[in-house]
Formats: sequence, C-alpha cells, structure tokens
Amino acid sequence: MTPKHGQLIYEGKAKRIYETDLDNRVLIEFKNDATAFNALKHEEFEGKGRINCEISAHLFEVLEKAGVPTHYLSREDDCWMLAKHVEIIPLEVVVRNIATGSLCKETPIEQGKELIPPLLDYYFKDDNLGDPLLSEARLERLGVISKKKKLEVEKLSSQINILLKAFFKQLDLTIVDFKLEFGIDKNGQILLSDEISPDTCRIWDQRNSDDKARILDKDRFRKDLGGLVNAYGEVLKRIQGLSSKPHNCS
Amino acid sequence: MTPKHGQLIYEGKAKRIYETDLDNRVLIEFKNDATAFNALKHEEFEGKGRINCEISAHLFEVLEKAGVPTHYLSREDDCWMLAKHVEIIPLEVVVRNIATGSLCKETPIEQGKELIPPLLDYYFKDDNLGDPLLSEARLERLGVISKKKKLEVEKLSSQINILLKAFFKQLDLTIVDFKLEFGIDKNGQILLSDEISPDTCRIWDQRNSDDKARILDKDRFRKDLGGLVNAYGEVLKRIQGLSSKPHNCS
Repeated sequence: MTPKHGQLIYEGKAKRIYETDLDNRVLIEFKNDATAFNALKHEEFEGKGRINCEISAHLFEVLEKAGVPTHYLSREDDCWMLAKHVEIIPLEVVVRNIATGSLCKETPIEQGKELIPPLLDYYFKDDNLGDPLLSEARLERLGVISKKKKLEVEKLSSQINILLKAFFKQLDLTIVDFKLEFGIDKNGQILLSDEISPDTCRIWDQRNSDDKARILDKDRFRKDLGGLVNAYGEVLKRIQGLSSKPHNCS
Repeated sequence: MTPKHGQLIYEGKAKRIYETDLDNRVLIEFKNDATAFNALKHEEFEGKGRINCEISAHLFEVLEKAGVPTHYLSREDDCWMLAKHVEIIPLEVVVRNIATGSLCKETPIEQGKELIPPLLDYYFKDDNLGDPLLSEARLERLGVISKKKKLEVEKLSSQINILLKAFFKQLDLTIVDFKLEFGIDKNGQILLSDEISPDTCRIWDQRNSDDKARILDKDRFRKDLGGLVNAYGEVLKRIQGLSSKPHNCS
C-alpha cells in the first residue's frame, strides 16, 4: 500500500516530490508533462508519468543489483515511487555514447559519431539560467561539489553507462546519451537520484534503421515527430518482456 | 618602412592578415570594424584600428620583455603590425579577474565579484558555431591542442594575467577580463598571437566610479554607451604617458 503523501517539497518540470510519514522517505509523482527547450515547449501526454515511473523503477533495480547506490526504494501505484530523501547536487551529468543534439550544435563533432571514450559534461541545474554547460573552471568556482565527490560521481556515471549500454543492448535498443542527477543522503552518501527514462535518455531502436522512426525518447516531442507515448511504451514493453522471460536453469 | 603586403591570408571580424615578401612574416591590418554578439551587431569606428594596433604593439612589447613569447615583431604605419607567421590554435582563452558579461548570464556568480583565483575558460573559435564555451571533455575530444601544449597555454595565460594586471594598475586601470589566442610557429613553439586591445579586454577606469563611465572597452559598443573611440584613446594616452615619463635614475 502506497504510504500517504504529505507536503509538497519540490515541483520540477516532470515530477513532484512529497514528504511522507516515514522517516527520510519521499514520494515521487511522475507527471504527464513534457517540456523542452527550457520549458518554452510544453505538452501533456496521458500515460507518460506511469510509463516513466515503471521504466525508472526497473532501471534503478538493475543498477542497485549491480552495486550502484540509488535513492530508489519501491514502485508504488500508477505514477508513484518511494525513494530515500536526498539533497540534490544541482548538477546535470550528461553522458554521451553517440554525438547528437546540443553537442552537434555547439561543437564541430558530427551527428551520429560514436564517442570513444564516452563524453561526460556537467550542466548547472538552474531553470532560470537555462541549465547552462559548465567548464571545469566554472564548476570548481561554483563550489557545489567537492573534488572527492566529483571523482565519485564520474566513477559512478561511467559504471552506470556500462550497465545501461549492456542492459539496453539485449533489448535491441541503443542508449545514445542520458542525463543523471545525484543526491546526498543523511549519511553523506552519494546516491543516483531523479529518474532514468525516455525523458532523460536518448534511446534508439536497433530494429529500425529509419532516422526518425527509431527514436524512442523525448526527441519525438522536441522534433514534433508524434507517437511519444507509443515510443515510451515500446521501451517499457521490451523491459517487461525481458523480466517475463523464463529463466534458463540449466 | 612597412614591407609590402602580398596576398590576403585571412580576414577576421577586426583584422586582416597578409603575406609579405619576408620569410615567415605576416602583416596584420587592424580594422575599424567593431562587431558584437557573434557579428549580429556591427559598426565602423574611424581611428579604432590605429589605436588598437598601437595598444597591442605596446602590450606585446611589455609581455615580450617579461619573457612571454609573442608573434609580435614591430608596429608599422598607422594600423599595421608586422608579426611572425603562426598556425592559430582555434581556441579563445578567456581569463577573468572580475565576474561580468556572459559569465554572469550563464552562472549564478554575481556581477562584479572578484575571482580568486582568476577563472580561465576555453571557447572554440568558430564563427558559425558562435564561439561556444567548451567543457574539459569537449576540448579534449576536439583534439585541437595536446595536453602538454594546453598546460603551457595555461601557464602563459596566468603569467600574462599577472603582468597585465600590474601594468594596467600603474595606469589607474583595472583589467577585468581578456581573451587570448595562441599560435604555433614553424619551430613548433607556442606564441601569444592575435591582439590585446580594448576589443579583446574589459578595462575599467579606476579614476571613475560610475558603472558606465568607467568602461573603456568594447562594452561601450555592446551596451550602446557611445564614446568608443574616446575610451580606447584614453587607454592609449595613459600607456603613452607612461613611456614618456622621465626615468628615475637615482
């Protein structure tokens, strides 16, 4: 039974975070809203919240099993997730395996280029400033993360990338890039937080070579391609298919 | 006598570079054009080219004397400078002593905040891309500078900042921030190149506490404050006043 939610602690573009009557536990509500271009574009998609909640829950479970500490505790009804309370580090950590999106607008790196090693960028999480890219010097100057914790974040992000790449590969999906957020719990431990879903990842369908049709993520909304909920649903279906496969007990 | 210029090698927003009949020497013509906001704003200022050429020549001489290798050879007539031919590294190195401009639009760092240590950012020199800020990962990925040369550039930039701060201080001027470009000569040596002028530095007059009146650099153009040539001329006048002061021979 989902615990009762208390006061709203925080409302973001795609989620609401509520207090609960459990110590250091919060309830996260995944919203149907989709926003892009720093919320200049906005639309609601019936069913998106539930799908993203389910996908995120599953991915957090996969990562936890592999030893990545996350804020995830359990998936509750519909679009609700129970998680540990954390102080979010105001950074977006973006890991890219294939060049696309803003990277190709802001550098001469060609669209579709495989990035070896993967490229890790920090953005400052601030809607008013439009979540700007940070240079090393700016990141250091802002003082939002210690050198030690930064190294830890980079090690975790790299580990998460390896795990997600392998996980999606078995679903015939390519994880092109993704955004992570980290939080610090009451014990000072870094936990992967926020969500991991087609809102925060670029996911391409390996079963489809068409540049547009293969897109199963928020780029369907950014690029007005339509079919967002179906695309997200396809990702979820493949994930569910995987867990319903009979185990090989030989 | 100024050597004859040959073929135009490169035309930028504020300078033209020509071949000469001297080996590995180029002639640089400082233009009267001022551009801002990635050339969306453009205007000509009679006399600016000559003033910037004189200021740059003087600053290159100051830096050379202090051991900074530069492309500068001599100032020729009017708006012409003779320099060593270099391959420009396509990076803009921006050193900031006081927070202002884009830094304050792209981070929560407050306008006017003194930056200790000074903040060094790399931008990719590419007009079509709007000279974008680079993260460490992007810079590394672009492969436009080796790790060894990058360290050298950072050491030189820091040294140049110390020298420029001290130089301007004795003129009652504050060097707020500045942009440097480096080139590589035929021997593979890194040389400070491009120009150092009120087009590429922010310079505030310490004799004037008014936020606008104290501006003696291209911000007069960016912010439509007027009096650009007078402001640049004031910087030059103080520099010239310094060199015409009688030496203290005690």
